[in-house]
Amino acid sequence: MRPLNFKIDKKLEGKLGRTGVLSTPHGDIQTPAFVTVGTKATVKALTPEMVKDLGAQVVLANTYHLYLEPGDEIVRDAGGIQKFMNWTGPTMTDSGGFQVFSLGAAYGKGLGKILKRGEEELALPVLNEEISRKAIIDPNGVMFRSHIDGSSHYFTPEKSIEIQHNLGADMIFAFDECTSPHESEHYQAEALDRTHRWAKRSLEYHHSKPNKETQGLFGIVQGGRSEKLRKESAEFLGALPFDGYGIGGSFEKEDMNKAVEWCNSILPEDKPRHLLGIGEPTDLFGAVENGCDLFDCVAPTRMARNGGAHTRDGKISLMNAEFRTDFTPVDAECGCYTCKHYTKAYLAHLFRSKEMLAGTLLSIHNLYFIIHMVDEMREAIRNNIFFEYKENFLKRYYK
Amino acid sequence: MRPLNFKIDKKLEGKLGRTGVLSTPHGDIQTPAFVTVGTKATVKALTPEMVKDLGAQVVLANTYHLYLEPGDEIVRDAGGIQKFMNWTGPTMTDSGGFQVFSLGAAYGKGLGKILKRGEEELALPVLNEEISRKAIIDPNGVMFRSHIDGSSHYFTPEKSIEIQHNLGADMIFAFDECTSPHESEHYQAEALDRTHRWAKRSLEYHHSKPNKETQGLFGIVQGGRSEKLRKESAEFLGALPFDGYGIGGSFEKEDMNKAVEWCNSILPEDKPRHLLGIGEPTDLFGAVENGCDLFDCVAPTRMARNGGAHTRDGKISLMNAEFRTDFTPVDAECGCYTCKHYTKAYLAHLFRSKEMLAGTLLSIHNLYFIIHMVDEMREAIRNNIFFEYKENFLKRYYK
Repeated sequence: MRPLNFKIDKKLEGKLGRTGVLSTPHGDIQTPAFVTVGTKATVKALTPEMVKDLGAQVVLANTYHLYLEPGDEIVRDAGGIQKFMNWTGPTMTDSGGFQVFSLGAAYGKGLGKILKRGEEELALPVLNEEISRKAIIDPNGVMFRSHIDGSSHYFTPEKSIEIQHNLGADMIFAFDECTSPHESEHYQAEALDRTHRWAKRSLEYHHSKPNKETQGLFGIVQGGRSEKLRKESAEFLGALPFDGYGIGGSFEKEDMNKAVEWCNSILPEDKPRHLLGIGEPTDLFGAVENGCDLFDCVAPTRMARNGGAHTRDGKISLMNAEFRTDFTPVDAECGCYTCKHYTKAYLAHLFRSKEMLAGTLLSIHNLYFIIHMVDEMREAIRNNIFFEYKENFLKRYYK
Repeated sequence: MRPLNFKIDKKLEGKLGRTGVLSTPHGDIQTPAFVTVGTKATVKALTPEMVKDLGAQVVLANTYHLYLEPGDEIVRDAGGIQKFMNWTGPTMTDSGGFQVFSLGAAYGKGLGKILKRGEEELALPVLNEEISRKAIIDPNGVMFRSHIDGSSHYFTPEKSIEIQHNLGADMIFAFDECTSPHESEHYQAEALDRTHRWAKRSLEYHHSKPNKETQGLFGIVQGGRSEKLRKESAEFLGALPFDGYGIGGSFEKEDMNKAVEWCNSILPEDKPRHLLGIGEPTDLFGAVENGCDLFDCVAPTRMARNGGAHTRDGKISLMNAEFRTDFTPVDAECGCYTCKHYTKAYLAHLFRSKEMLAGTLLSIHNLYFIIHMVDEMREAIRNNIFFEYKENFLKRYYK
């Protein structure tokens, strides 16, 4: 028995986009769907009930963080990530690969994953030859240091899957090397070769365990900005019996849609595809249009904790002085808990007072906004009005 | 029409304690009741729905803080404190007197309000002659500096009441001078004289405004550790037409019950009495037994944010290593949301990870614990088993 079942119910004419239902051991996900990030087994500042009430269908936690604290064996002994964090719906964990490189190998070097992006993006180092030697990548795995206490750790594909088995999410990822778009084609090819060998080893280890019945394993397509490598990676991984596929960053912003299209035109159509670490409205439209079913990003909640809010008319900062006396909601058209009960003036007060409720209320709003935007894209595909919806949304948001 | 109506329904035999119902423009309060503190128009880390669900009947916000940020006129323009913060039940504001002295006049001097107490207590300076001169108290009011930006402000009784009218709580307090128990009897007498004159001016100003119909004004009994002064203060204020009475700190810990008894044996029986800033189980039993109906304290939530939890068997710290693998709730006998859904291991993980949800979940527990303890005292008085309940509770808690 396979742990996941994916059924496409509508395709976007002339493009790779589609809607569907992804069935997991802990419930169905209507796709495309935005995946809420709960890095350390908590969606920052929110209870699981809030996360559910704002419309989230699935939560992704980070293997690297949970391995370091509290430790994957404690999560296992608690009954798995779901029970540990009191989230009753579907869950995912990433492979730890991204964090091993960005937080472990070169933490604090302040280099961006996606170039030319705003400050809300995650940090990933430019892994030039020197830094990557420091990360101590060998054919078998990666030696890295904890960003918490500097202690040394070693991840192999088998170790990453073993940890993810302990964490027990419905969907897990093969261990990969996430490279920077600044890397040379030569380095990208070398890293991709490792990622492919590690993908096979992740799959073999996973299939040797009973967890293959209850946890779906996604392979991660890499290849940076190179059409050749991206296609090669999609071909290679697409031929392996994964339960789904991730498409790994890193892109130049303008490359993303192309790279996604290269991958998705090759990946098996009947498997779910997750674009990793994407949360800007324009990127999400591109990802959906080009055939991705799932995407996750910390941006909505991180932005919220810093006072930044999505509105239909673009981003605003609650720290702006004008909002101190603005007794209207963050977004008058929004149906979220925060917009129904609080004014910008109250949120401005909470942010100025450094009150924790500020981050809670604005996280609810931003997640609701992004999740419902993707929900609306899904409905728009089903109603044959996707391109009209997209044009109207983006014209107004980025005006 | 008076804004408040207080009905005593049961008295504690041989003592001043009683149960009753305090009706306010925004609902009834079963007394005795623990008042939840929402200093800056937010109970820290909680939504109003959480506060209501955990059993809170009434929220107290701080005049000093709201005057400085966002400003009382903004709260007025928002429709009052209730509407501003989305709390639908009864509200109180204090007079600002305590914070003017502890945060404004001598902020950061690290002196305790109640001597020989744990770190969770509020800071109040020892107002010796020199420091009190720095606070610039004159017969008309107090000049103080903002703890936020150092700007100068001047509070008079009229100003305090005007601010509290703008904030719009159901119950407000006369402007008083809160002294340290270290002060000389001479200084206490001088300060008490000011407090009395300010109480009359607060009352006169309040009665000159239509707000007297919708907001009840409490006078504050002071007098430090002196029986003579406490009784004098209760006599003086008890003869004035206040809607209720506050009993102001500061006490030596062992004096508190005596001081409360001195005051309550004199204050009019048919008016509600609020003991300010008290939240330890043993103190709450003493306050109820000696005739107080309301009490507020930041301790339950402050302690929670630092990882400290109340249990029937005393306090524990979730930072203790043993709890990392403890898959039982904080208190197995507790019916709160946190104890029903989360383990100590999960909370220990959240605290170690510095996740905001840690403070939220433990604040829910601690407030539920203290509020329900007071609820149980009320039921115990009604069922004639107060002293039995008290003995059992305290024996186990402080064992």
